[in-house]
Amino acid sequence: MPVDQTATTLVTGFDNVPAFARGLVRDLRVRWALEEMGRTYCPQLLDAFAPRPEGYRDWQPFGQVPAFAEGDLRLFESGAILLYLGEQDERLLPRDPAGRWAATSWLIAALNSVEPMTMQIVNLDVFQAGQPWTRDARPSAVEMVRARLASTENALGDKDWLAGPFSVADIMMVTVLRNLDHTDILAGFPALSAYKARGEARPAFRQALADQSAGYVEQAA
Amino acid sequence: MPVDQTATTLVTGFDNVPAFARGLVRDLRVRWALEEMGRTYCPQLLDAFAPRPEGYRDWQPFGQVPAFAEGDLRLFESGAILLYLGEQDERLLPRDPAGRWAATSWLIAALNSVEPMTMQIVNLDVFQAGQPWTRDARPSAVEMVRARLASTENALGDKDWLAGPFSVADIMMVTVLRNLDHTDILAGFPALSAYKARGEARPAFRQALADQSAGYVEQAA
Repeated sequence: MPVDQTATTLVTGFDNVPAFARGLVRDLRVRWALEEMGRTYCPQLLDAFAPRPEGYRDWQPFGQVPAFAEGDLRLFESGAILLYLGEQDERLLPRDPAGRWAATSWLIAALNSVEPMTMQIVNLDVFQAGQPWTRDARPSAVEMVRARLASTENALGDKDWLAGPFSVADIMMVTVLRNLDHTDILAGFPALSAYKARGEARPAFRQALADQSAGYVEQAA
Repeated sequence: MPVDQTATTLVTGFDNVPAFARGLVRDLRVRWALEEMGRTYCPQLLDAFAPRPEGYRDWQPFGQVPAFAEGDLRLFESGAILLYLGEQDERLLPRDPAGRWAATSWLIAALNSVEPMTMQIVNLDVFQAGQPWTRDARPSAVEMVRARLASTENALGDKDWLAGPFSVADIMMVTVLRNLDHTDILAGFPALSAYKARGEARPAFRQALADQSAGYVEQAA
């Protein structure tokens, strides 16, 4: 979706990240949700390697991306932003209480019961790569993430999506699973692998990823 | 607050946990919120060391606690449950959009930008205790959690609570900070230490902790 410079919806991202982080930075989650809604937005791209702009931490206290603004309203954390957008569009968050809170429970589960275990693998394989102790640390970390993936796959069963219809919970879980793309861990979970592929095949995901990647290309040009 | 066996609000917890986990199990967050609201509830205590009861994973897919039910509505993940309760009581989640989404952003930040780093310390110090590699792994883990605590303290500034009035964001952040109680890491952040103490001094917190602890005492008796 072309950038609309008059849009009042702002999403921060980075215009340059290391190779391993391409397609993993969390503004992708917000871009994907906005594409599902057919909403235009204005990306504000920061330099990942430079100090954050003056005042940015008043908006995003950890200096991370994404931060989000719509008119005077400011949010941070991809999970909070997805819940906010979900409330605006029942295609992303059901209106009935059972459906709404099932999706919210799964969104939080992706953030707090699955992502930390995937990020520990990223930490060992990327951020701490080459440290001798990571070899001994990895088996228990793999065991932990496998346990969480097994529970997730078991809950998914033969359903297409985690909580009834497609929702922000799936945007969150699919992007969390992408943290393991540099490994073969997810291959041990065929139904979860198919679930992730189903999410990544959605036109809104593909557009969001293309737009996020285009920001990097412009930087390199 | 005495248990009301007729209440339709159910919260699962454990009736026996290892010493290090006492006062840290996440049903405390939900109990605290319910006490702030003056709400009765019925704890359903599981044996932490036994297989989960038949069907429990249909309610809590990871076999964890807390799970929550109110009438026919079922939720899991402490973060989702706090958001649900917050919507019922503006003393826990402001009604105005700016206040509501600031508190939601901070609740998610506690879960995804602070808790994983605190749990990595718990992992090294408790779950992997005695593994030779943990000594070499710990400095980078401490550095990471300190960075997140510094950002949180900086955002707190001289305010009492993270997002305006006391909210579910503070219930979440204070209980996340408690994960570091076995270390001296938080002592390096005086304003954040005072913030945590302010939360722990609230009568609702003290009642929730006493009630959670009483479940363990009965087990030991």
